Amino acid sequence: MSNEKIPYKIYLEESEMPKEWYNVRADMKNKPAPLLNPGTLQPMTAEELAPVFCDELVKQELDDTTPYIEIPEEIRDFYKMYRPSPLVRAYCLEKKLGTPAKIYYKFEGNNTSGSHKLNSAIAQAYYAKKQGLKGVTTETGAGQWGTALSMACSYFDLDCKVYMVKVSYEQKPFRREVMRTYGASVTPSPSTETEIGKKILADHPGTTGSLGCAISEAVEVATKSEGYRYVLGSVLNQVLLHQSVIGLETKAALDKIGEKADIIIGCAGGGSNLGGLISPFVGQMLRGEEDYRIIAVEPASCPSFTRGKYAYDFCDTGMVCPLAKMYTLGSGFIPAPNHAGGLRYHGMSSTLSQLYDDGLIEATSVKQTEVFEAAEYFARVEGILPAPESSHAIKVAIDEAKKCIETGEEKTIVFGLTGTGYFDMFAYEKFHDGVMDDYIPTDAEIAESLSKLPKVD
Amino acid sequence: MSNEKIPYKIYLEESEMPKEWYNVRADMKNKPAPLLNPGTLQPMTAEELAPVFCDELVKQELDDTTPYIEIPEEIRDFYKMYRPSPLVRAYCLEKKLGTPAKIYYKFEGNNTSGSHKLNSAIAQAYYAKKQGLKGVTTETGAGQWGTALSMACSYFDLDCKVYMVKVSYEQKPFRREVMRTYGASVTPSPSTETEIGKKILADHPGTTGSLGCAISEAVEVATKSEGYRYVLGSVLNQVLLHQSVIGLETKAALDKIGEKADIIIGCAGGGSNLGGLISPFVGQMLRGEEDYRIIAVEPASCPSFTRGKYAYDFCDTGMVCPLAKMYTLGSGFIPAPNHAGGLRYHGMSSTLSQLYDDGLIEATSVKQTEVFEAAEYFARVEGILPAPESSHAIKVAIDEAKKCIETGEEKTIVFGLTGTGYFDMFAYEKFHDGVMDDYIPTDAEIAESLSKLPKVD
Repeated sequence: MSNEKIPYKIYLEESEMPKEWYNVRADMKNKPAPLLNPGTLQPMTAEELAPVFCDELVKQELDDTTPYIEIPEEIRDFYKMYRPSPLVRAYCLEKKLGTPAKIYYKFEGNNTSGSHKLNSAIAQAYYAKKQGLKGVTTETGAGQWGTALSMACSYFDLDCKVYMVKVSYEQKPFRREVMRTYGASVTPSPSTETEIGKKILADHPGTTGSLGCAISEAVEVATKSEGYRYVLGSVLNQVLLHQSVIGLETKAALDKIGEKADIIIGCAGGGSNLGGLISPFVGQMLRGEEDYRIIAVEPASCPSFTRGKYAYDFCDTGMVCPLAKMYTLGSGFIPAPNHAGGLRYHGMSSTLSQLYDDGLIEATSVKQTEVFEAAEYFARVEGILPAPESSHAIKVAIDEAKKCIETGEEKTIVFGLTGTGYFDMFAYEKFHDGVMDDYIPTDAEIAESLSKLPKVD
Repeated sequence: MSNEKIPYKIYLEESEMPKEWYNVRADMKNKPAPLLNPGTLQPMTAEELAPVFCDELVKQELDDTTPYIEIPEEIRDFYKMYRPSPLVRAYCLEKKLGTPAKIYYKFEGNNTSGSHKLNSAIAQAYYAKKQGLKGVTTETGAGQWGTALSMACSYFDLDCKVYMVKVSYEQKPFRREVMRTYGASVTPSPSTETEIGKKILADHPGTTGSLGCAISEAVEVATKSEGYRYVLGSVLNQVLLHQSVIGLETKAALDKIGEKADIIIGCAGGGSNLGGLISPFVGQMLRGEEDYRIIAVEPASCPSFTRGKYAYDFCDTGMVCPLAKMYTLGSGFIPAPNHAGGLRYHGMSSTLSQLYDDGLIEATSVKQTEVFEAAEYFARVEGILPAPESSHAIKVAIDEAKKCIETGEEKTIVFGLTGTGYFDMFAYEKFHDGVMDDYIPTDAEIAESLSKLPKVD
């Protein structure tokens, strides 16, 4: 093993790090469908988006023609504190499986937020600061996004108001505490700080909250407070743009060692990681330069690609945000309560939805317990304790590597290891104790949720 | 900032990683005093140590003449999964402080155990496996060592029995769960599995355990079980030898960028990190090649260097282990119960104790709340949430960098950032809530504890 030419970890030099993000929409012939104003059903304009998002981010959100967008130097300086992230050759995993496949993973967990979310958080905080804002608001569920944003705001000395789903606030006190360390204010949602929060609490006194409710509160506070805007960690085009740094680094590292991926695998919730990882590779496909097999992995409990519908839907359960065309299970869909970690979002990024609809990427869903089996297997062999979200990709990467044992093919498999599971030990404990189950929504449940999609011809 | 020649993170190439550990004892004129048999008060022989420790580790423990010892290839392969660790240039911290000093830190937290402990855990597991043993036993308090050993044993398919201080077992369920993920059995100590555990439970029915008691249980199980040995994560010479990989990498990285350290700072509990970090630099001092200022930082609540006595003492509170000559507060000394994190050990590695006694290193102690202030400051500026242990070094590094502001000196400060604080958020919460205090033992308390030192001529 030690005589291999390719090292265990491939790091780019600082000088080789991307200086521009890649905007995959520029190379798409079928552009992602625009966001619609829920009142008029007309495409949202920059003016309509400006009260909610920072001006520069609105511009990025609507720009589907510029292929490369410069990463400002201040953001690149921040990236240098925790990037480039390593592209790891999984020698130990290959050996343990006995596969002829070569397995690589891009590891985004070596930063305090524990995931790739920081790549977009720092960009969004930067543009907010540049616009002279006082602060930003957001929601967080599992807490990765809230943590990443807290770190980013602390760096640029911005106020950060996080609305954290109440059940997570109570069950994940350590995540909350990390955010406090970075100076963020963390409020359990629903709260009495907002009109929508008060209304929800009046209607449902014992509620433990939901992501949709937290979004609504964060948006309300942003639009009603002088000098604040709302920021979001996934789904949006701007987020996929920032996350393209993952894919650009991955491609540069593969090029550096003379390797070409055959299969690229990523977990898919709202699409921030998957979209970022695959962007430059999909760009090659769109330009007819290369071909890859790209697999989106989603949880069987929340299967928007594999069992959802491609239609306009609300981005939030509160139905206050613009409509997006996406693969969706309906904005009222709520995954099984025992579902561990993220990937709980009812829809999927418009960009990825269009790519999926055009047949450029495929999708598969996996069950929760098999995901944790793969997670534990991986942790023992590769030494990294993965986040439950990331472990969806691990599961499918292992399956593909096993297929190579049968066929004898030396395929090159690349997957995204989005983060670490240090704050998910409660879920691991359930798994160890054998009390984790695999609830999968019935066809009737999904049909019922989809029957409430907004009517957009 | 971006025009600096030295990158934010200096990584060695895989081929530049150390192939040998450095044994600083070989260059010491005044050798560390030998371990003594508590019955005969004679130096422990290899035969006497063999029932407790693996044969090869006994050899390393007693070897004070061989300067370089080969790192077996299997261990180097494992190191490649998470090493080399980055030497980080703290540009953001320097800028925030406005200091002319150059600050570097060697960051050992980018692995699932969250600390440098893995460097010795994998070595000890390897030698156990090579000897054909079934497994190893150990104790753990805060949990870093237990986690590291679980990972190492999982890699070599060895059984791992961890005795975890009961209060930590209950307060740190997530640490326990990480160990379970790696297949270790974790038993709250005192337990009914051992004679000593049963005796302690009978004498003190409500006890929440102590490190000394957990050591005694782990040693009992190792010596009474066929094919098991006991392993320890700090204090011992063998541990400092393995941890020299930290210092060797640090020195190689500094040499690579043409930088020479003026001040080297490390936190000191039992001495595993500090000893590893400074070994090659102290070696240069011992050989008259270079001069450095080396600072050991210990908690004011457990100040073995700064307020202890250099004398033979028991390594464990159960008084079953050999006697070691070291700076000690007495084996019965128990730090304040509110003390956060590690560095709770009553004594200090014999090697470091001799170096301190010979004036090659200096020591200082810092209070708990000022440590957490430095930790939070660092986290916000450098993006890494540090472990409370590591933050002792941060505090003093910041103080030294501030002195440079006054004097205008461009000193090069290097400190060891031993790990991350993800599992220490309970302590951070106390700090944020203002309920952390700074208990410092009185002179009378220390004198009382020291009055019970064993009588050795």
